[in-house]
Amino acid sequence: MPGQILSSPKNPNIQLVRGLLEQSKARRKHNAFVAEGARVLEDGLASAVPLRFILYKTSLSTRAKTLLEGIKPGQLAFEVEDRLFDSLSDTESSQGILGVFNIPEPSQPARPGFVVILDQLRDPGNLGTILRSAEAAGVQAICLPPGTTDVWAPKVVRSAMGAHFRLPLLQWPWEAITAYVEGLSVYHADMDGQESLWQADFRGRTALLIGGEAEGISPEGRVLATHSVRIPMVGKTESLNAAVSASVLMFEVLRQRSQKV
Amino acid sequence: MPGQILSSPKNPNIQLVRGLLEQSKARRKHNAFVAEGARVLEDGLASAVPLRFILYKTSLSTRAKTLLEGIKPGQLAFEVEDRLFDSLSDTESSQGILGVFNIPEPSQPARPGFVVILDQLRDPGNLGTILRSAEAAGVQAICLPPGTTDVWAPKVVRSAMGAHFRLPLLQWPWEAITAYVEGLSVYHADMDGQESLWQADFRGRTALLIGGEAEGISPEGRVLATHSVRIPMVGKTESLNAAVSASVLMFEVLRQRSQKV
Repeated sequence: MPGQILSSPKNPNIQLVRGLLEQSKARRKHNAFVAEGARVLEDGLASAVPLRFILYKTSLSTRAKTLLEGIKPGQLAFEVEDRLFDSLSDTESSQGILGVFNIPEPSQPARPGFVVILDQLRDPGNLGTILRSAEAAGVQAICLPPGTTDVWAPKVVRSAMGAHFRLPLLQWPWEAITAYVEGLSVYHADMDGQESLWQADFRGRTALLIGGEAEGISPEGRVLATHSVRIPMVGKTESLNAAVSASVLMFEVLRQRSQKV
Repeated sequence: MPGQILSSPKNPNIQLVRGLLEQSKARRKHNAFVAEGARVLEDGLASAVPLRFILYKTSLSTRAKTLLEGIKPGQLAFEVEDRLFDSLSDTESSQGILGVFNIPEPSQPARPGFVVILDQLRDPGNLGTILRSAEAAGVQAICLPPGTTDVWAPKVVRSAMGAHFRLPLLQWPWEAITAYVEGLSVYHADMDGQESLWQADFRGRTALLIGGEAEGISPEGRVLATHSVRIPMVGKTESLNAAVSASVLMFEVLRQRSQKV
């Protein structure tokens, strides 16, 4: 759109982005989310998830400029006055560029072998970090029951480094999650778990059930768990960071499955 | 100090705390740091690290009140007007209570078997999370070469959940670090590492060398590395969060050392 520089806070695209960045309600209503920064935006453009439009600020980073030069005909990109852009998104995290995408329909496997259930996770940075690790560890679907923070929030998207475009993210009620993990061993990650993660056998179909930073798992999660597993710790630490626990467990699953028996 | 409620921003203790929270220069000058929140403060009081004084706000959480009731005679605790306290530290993270402690002299083992070197880590939350994991995984000393963010900064202390009071934290120049890890296998954690962490043999004396989020390791770190190790990943993730990589590696060291051979 040469020549057209958005400068009004009342512009409908600007208002849409502001809503999507600030409110989970707006994300649900519009079925859309924002990917900030060249790195995550590149992942989005490389995926099958439909792009609605790109916004970029006038004074743009080199990486973002290169990205813009590569967008396809028909993909909408609007230039935005610096001050208006900065009022939407802090430039350090966005690098002056962001994309609005449809929230994709998840395409989870019908018979999964490795699922992670995130129950009552509240910290967006932890949630995003877990998604980033999950993809790397070969997790096939993430279940997000009610009570876990909105997975499409901007901080989650930034921390997940593109995993939103590649992992099936299932924001489902407990009934649907329960049906989905039928037949899997569901390991509740717990400080006082029965088995250590090195004793547990994760080579069969496995779900890891990770509780929140403060409350742990919900009553519904507790019903679902078929096993409990602990990470042995030395020293006086009472617990690990939630993203760390989840990641150590997920990579133990990957380890066991990578070993020749 | 019954009756004495600090209300002036010019009070020397208030000014000291403000400096310690905001500037690494002030922390070095006064050789002191701030532990915010009842949980971390409890760990400090249970340690041998000398307490200088406690500040607490008038409207205090129950946990913090209980803690205050348990302090020893001779330990100084000053009540601070709510607004003044809140101008120092956000109450959500401090729970309305904080302690000023001496930066302890580290008591590292002379012949360590498990060391972590954090090279060019910039994110205080990542650094603190790594310390929390390190203690749990049995790390005996943390080396912090120049270029890594100040380990005594408030966000690092909050994320480390008391590890500052228990782990030897060595803010040393490279020469001293090099001498300290003499004789250890130094594994550079690298996406393109020669061995996977599951192939590597961590049962001998081991140092893990973890690079920063953006720059990776420094030239000095590169010279120190004797091996390189990767965390195998599936999917399209380019890398893991720095605290996650470090933690997955540290717990693999613990796993190998916990197994009967």
